[in-house]
Amino acid sequence: MQFKDLVSENKKDWLKVVKHPFVDEIYRGKLAEETFKFYLIQDHYYLNQSMRNMAILISKAENLKQKQQLIDILNIEANVEFAKYQELLEYYSLEVKSAEEMKMTYSNIAYSNYLLAVSSQAGFAEGMAALIPCYWIYLKMAEYHHHKLKENDNQIYQDWATVFKSSDYKELVENMVEILEKEIETKNFKKLNYHFKNSIKFEYQFFSDVYQRKIWEI
Amino acid sequence: MQFKDLVSENKKDWLKVVKHPFVDEIYRGKLAEETFKFYLIQDHYYLNQSMRNMAILISKAENLKQKQQLIDILNIEANVEFAKYQELLEYYSLEVKSAEEMKMTYSNIAYSNYLLAVSSQAGFAEGMAALIPCYWIYLKMAEYHHHKLKENDNQIYQDWATVFKSSDYKELVENMVEILEKEIETKNFKKLNYHFKNSIKFEYQFFSDVYQRKIWEI
Amino acid sequence: MQFKDLVSENKKDWLKVVKHPFVDEIYRGKLAEETFKFYLIQDHYYLNQSMRNMAILISKAENLKQKQQLIDILNIEANVEFAKYQELLEYYSLEVKSAEEMKMTYSNIAYSNYLLAVSSQAGFAEGMAALIPCYWIYLKMAEYHHHKLKENDNQIYQDWATVFKSSDYKELVENMVEILEKEIETKNFKKLNYHFKNSIKFEYQFFSDVYQRKIWEI
Amino acid sequence: MQFKDLVSENKKDWLKVVKHPFVDEIYRGKLAEETFKFYLIQDHYYLNQSMRNMAILISKAENLKQKQQLIDILNIEANVEFAKYQELLEYYSLEVKSAEEMKMTYSNIAYSNYLLAVSSQAGFAEGMAALIPCYWIYLKMAEYHHHKLKENDNQIYQDWATVFKSSDYKELVENMVEILEKEIETKNFKKLNYHFKNSIKFEYQFFSDVYQRKIWEI
Repeated sequence: MQFKDLVSENKKDWLKVVKHPFVDEIYRGKLAEETFKFYLIQDHYYLNQSMRNMAILISKAENLKQKQQLIDILNIEANVEFAKYQELLEYYSLEVKSAEEMKMTYSNIAYSNYLLAVSSQAGFAEGMAALIPCYWIYLKMAEYHHHKLKENDNQIYQDWATVFKSSDYKELVENMVEILEKEIETKNFKKLNYHFKNSIKFEYQFFSDVYQRKIWEI
Repeated sequence: MQFKDLVSENKKDWLKVVKHPFVDEIYRGKLAEETFKFYLIQDHYYLNQSMRNMAILISKAENLKQKQQLIDILNIEANVEFAKYQELLEYYSLEVKSAEEMKMTYSNIAYSNYLLAVSSQAGFAEGMAALIPCYWIYLKMAEYHHHKLKENDNQIYQDWATVFKSSDYKELVENMVEILEKEIETKNFKKLNYHFKNSIKFEYQFFSDVYQRKIWEI
Repeated sequence: MQFKDLVSENKKDWLKVVKHPFVDEIYRGKLAEETFKFYLIQDHYYLNQSMRNMAILISKAENLKQKQQLIDILNIEANVEFAKYQELLEYYSLEVKSAEEMKMTYSNIAYSNYLLAVSSQAGFAEGMAALIPCYWIYLKMAEYHHHKLKENDNQIYQDWATVFKSSDYKELVENMVEILEKEIETKNFKKLNYHFKNSIKFEYQFFSDVYQRKIWEI
Repeated sequence: MQFKDLVSENKKDWLKVVKHPFVDEIYRGKLAEETFKFYLIQDHYYLNQSMRNMAILISKAENLKQKQQLIDILNIEANVEFAKYQELLEYYSLEVKSAEEMKMTYSNIAYSNYLLAVSSQAGFAEGMAALIPCYWIYLKMAEYHHHKLKENDNQIYQDWATVFKSSDYKELVENMVEILEKEIETKNFKKLNYHFKNSIKFEYQFFSDVYQRKIWEI
C-alpha cells in the first residue's frame, strides 16, 4: 500500500473539502471579510496546537534526516508563518488571546486535540497520517482553484493563496508525504487510513464552521 | 475557588445535558430501542477510550491514595462495566469491532480524543477537570429524572438508570470530585473551567448525535 | 523470533542477576537486616514508579483482554503489594517520604525513569520488553534458589521469597510474557532485545547498589 | 526562589563536574585522543536523545515566545550541532550506528532516558529544570577553564571549547535560564531542585564513564 492508496480511498471526501465554498470564494476574491477575519483567529489557535503536535512527532521520529525535515517545517511555522499571521492580525486590528479566553469553533477544538491525541498515544506513522491532510489538502486546493486567482482583485486573498502554489510549499508537502510513504505497510494501512480519513473530515468541518462563523455553543 | 464554582459557572450548559430528550426518554422508558442500541455501540468505544484516559491520569497522579482510588475505578470499568456492556450487546445481538471498522459519531471521536489530548499534554489537574463531567453528569441526571423510573416499564432502561442512583456510584463521583478539589487554585481555575466546560458541551453533542443516530459523514 | 530468543540471547546477563549475593543471602536467610531495610525503602519508590509505568502501558494496549490483564496486575500492585510493604515498613519502623526527600540509589533513579521513558516515547511492544525482566527475573530467582529456603530460619525472608514460587505469581508472569510474545516480530526483535537487555542490566545494578547500601553521591 | 538558589544549593556538586579531569584535560589540550573519540560517539547518541527531549518540551510550552526560543535551539542542534559532529566523526573515521548497535555507557543511557521520562511525565517546569544543567554547566566549564586554552595546542579541542565561551552560547543559556526563572515558585522549588540536582549528578557520571571509556557491562 502507498500514499496514493490513501488518496484514492478518500477521494470523495477530500474533493468535498477542496470544493468547499469557503475555498472557492477566497480564490475568487469574494469571501466576506468578516469570514476571513473569523478564519484568521481560528487558524491562529489551530496553528499553535499544530506546532505542539509537530513537536510531539519530532520527539518520536527515529530517522535523523526525517527529524531534521520536520524540525525545518516547525521552524518555518514558528517564524515565517506566525509572522505572517501577526501582520494580518494587525492589519485587521484583531486581538488574539489564550485558548481559554477566545471563542472557538467546535471543529477547531475537536480537530486540533484529535491530532494531539493520536500523536501522543499512537505511534509516529499514525501521527503522520493524521497530520498530513492539513498540509496536503492546501496543495490540492491550489491545483483546483488556482486559475480563479486571475480575476481575484483582493490582494490579501491573492497573497494568502499564492503561497500554496509555490514550489517551496510543494516541496514541503512532498517531503512529508515521503516520510509517511516509508511507514505505510499492508499491516498498518487500515489504521493509517482511519486517521487520514478523520483528518480530511475534520478539515471539512473546520471550513464549514468558519464559513458559518459558528462559535461552539450548545 | 472550588468545585462548586465549576458547577455554578457552567450551570446553563450542564442543565441542557441533563434535560436532553435522550436522557428524559430513557428514564421514562420511552427511548426507541434502535437509539439505545446505537448508544450502546457508541458508548462501548467511548468507554474503551475513557479507560485509556484514566490510565494516563493514573500515571500522573502523585498522591498514593488518589492513585489507588483511580485504579479502583479503572478496575471497575475494565471488569464490571465491560461485563455489563457485553451482556447488553449479546442481548441485542450487536457486534462490536475495532474503531477503524465501526461507524462512529463525530462527537464520539472528538470527545474521546479531546480527553486523551488533555491528559497526555496538560497536567493531572486539567486532565481531571476534563474527565469529571462524564461521571458527574450521570449523577445529576439521576437526581433530576429518577422519579420517572416509577412509570418506566422497560426493565433494561430501569437497570441501566438504577446504577447511577446507587450509593456506590455517588461515592465514586464524590471521590473523583475530592481529588479534583485538591487541585483547584485561583491560578489554574480559568484553565480547569475551560476543560470542564468543554467536556460538558461534548456530553451534549454526544447525546445529540446518538439521539439522531447520526454517523459522522461529510 | 520468540520470547525464548530474548531469554537465550541474554542468558549470561540474567544469570548474573539471579546469582547475585543479595538474592543468595535472602534465600539462605543470611542477608543483613540493614540491607533488607535499605532494599525495602528503595523498592517502595521503584514500585511507585513501576505502577506509573504500568498505567502508561495500559493506556497504549489495544487489545481489550490484554488491557484487562494489565489492569489486574496494576490493581494487585496498588492494593496487595503496597499493603505488604506497609506492613514491613511498620514492622521495621521505617518511614517513607516523597522521592525528593528520600536518598535513592543511582540505579533506582536510572532504572525506573528508563522504564517511564521507553513506555512514554516508544510503543507498547518496546515498553513491555523493558518491563518484563523485573517480573520474570523474580521467577528465575525462585527456581534457582528455592531449595535454600528449607534452611532459612528468617520468617520475613521466607515470606518474601515464597510469593515468587506461588502458582499465582507464575501465572502473572506467564500472562505478561504471552502479551509480549504476540508483539515480537523479526522486524522489531533487535529493539525489543535492546530494551530487554538494558532492564536485565538495570536489575543487576539495582541489587548491587542495594547490597552495598550505596546512596547516589558524586 | 530563583535560579540562583538552584545554583547555590548544588554548588558542591556542579563544581565537581566543572573540575572533572576530562574537562581539565580537554581545555589543556592533554586529553587522550581515544577518550575524545569515545566522547564523540557517546555524545552523538546523547544529542539525539536530547533533541527528542527538547521537542517534548516544545510541545508543552504554553508561551509563544518561549516556544519560539526553544524551537530556535532545537533548530541549531539539528543543523549546526549535528553538522559539527559529522565533520569530527569523519575526521576521526568514526562510524555511528543506531542505539541498539552501539555500545553505550551506563550513564549515557540513564541520563538521556531520565530527561525523556521527566519531560514526558512531569510538567514543563520540571522538564526545564532537568534539561538546563546540560547547557549551563558548559558555560561554567568555559568560565573556569578558559585561561588554559592559551597553552592548548590541540586545534580540535581549541575549537570545541571556544564555542562555549562565545556570546551566542552565553545568550542561548541565558534564554533558557530566563524561561525556567518564570516557572520557579516556592511551591515547586523542591521538585525543580530535585531534577536540577539529578541532572548535575548525571553530568558527572557521564564525564566519569567517558574518561574511563567504560562501556556498560555487568
